[in-house]
Amino acid sequence: MIEKIKTTIIALEKQALKSWNNGNPDGFLELSSDDVVYFDPVFEKKFVGKEALKAYYEGFRGKNKIDFYDMIEPIVQVMPECAVLMYDYVAHREGQSYRMHCTEVYKALSSGQWEITHTHWSFVLNNR
Amino acid sequence: MIEKIKTTIIALEKQALKSWNNGNPDGFLELSSDDVVYFDPVFEKKFVGKEALKAYYEGFRGKNKIDFYDMIEPIVQVMPECAVLMYDYVAHREGQSYRMHCTEVYKALSSGQWEITHTHWSFVLNNR
Repeated sequence: MIEKIKTTIIALEKQALKSWNNGNPDGFLELSSDDVVYFDPVFEKKFVGKEALKAYYEGFRGKNKIDFYDMIEPIVQVMPECAVLMYDYVAHREGQSYRMHCTEVYKALSSGQWEITHTHWSFVLNNR
Repeated sequence: MIEKIKTTIIALEKQALKSWNNGNPDGFLELSSDDVVYFDPVFEKKFVGKEALKAYYEGFRGKNKIDFYDMIEPIVQVMPECAVLMYDYVAHREGQSYRMHCTEVYKALSSGQWEITHTHWSFVLNNR
């Protein structure tokens, strides 16, 4: 059960990342809950709610083209009604690489689906 | 019930922050679970486990003196067996200010206590 949840969470995230890195934010938007709380490294304040996140993500549509990326050593903590996914991340674009950290809190719905209630993306400082 | 949990989580965090900003890491170490996963903005890789976190935090003992800090607009998502605390943060030290984001995942123990299973600290980029 726990292992199956871990596999499911990582697969959901990888699918959304694949779309995101091809310029399509819909994967993450569809996964995110209406009350999602989102930390972006270039904004001082949190984004609260899917509408706020959507307004921000729309600006990336068709633009975010990543040549290569990797989810590094993902760990999933299963509670089990929520699952916390944590991974190191690297993206390569136009000859530059970006090292990031990502936390995603997934909540189990009664339908058996999962939704993201919290996302925290940040840059690793000494690689900037 | 939900409101009481929110109040408890914020109080636990504020108490640990108070110690931390006076050079004492014990508050956060005592709250952290044995399998805590910790993201630090200057390390590319996660710290996994309390022993690894302790080894890192010991280097701050007696040194981390913050003149003024503030937990800004904390939000707590209650699942209810885990609670996710998210806040914007500012610290002032020697005339400089640092803007950060913090995510803390608290897990409810059968004893009624809470422990931190995940911490993610990051800097807001345009304020560096």
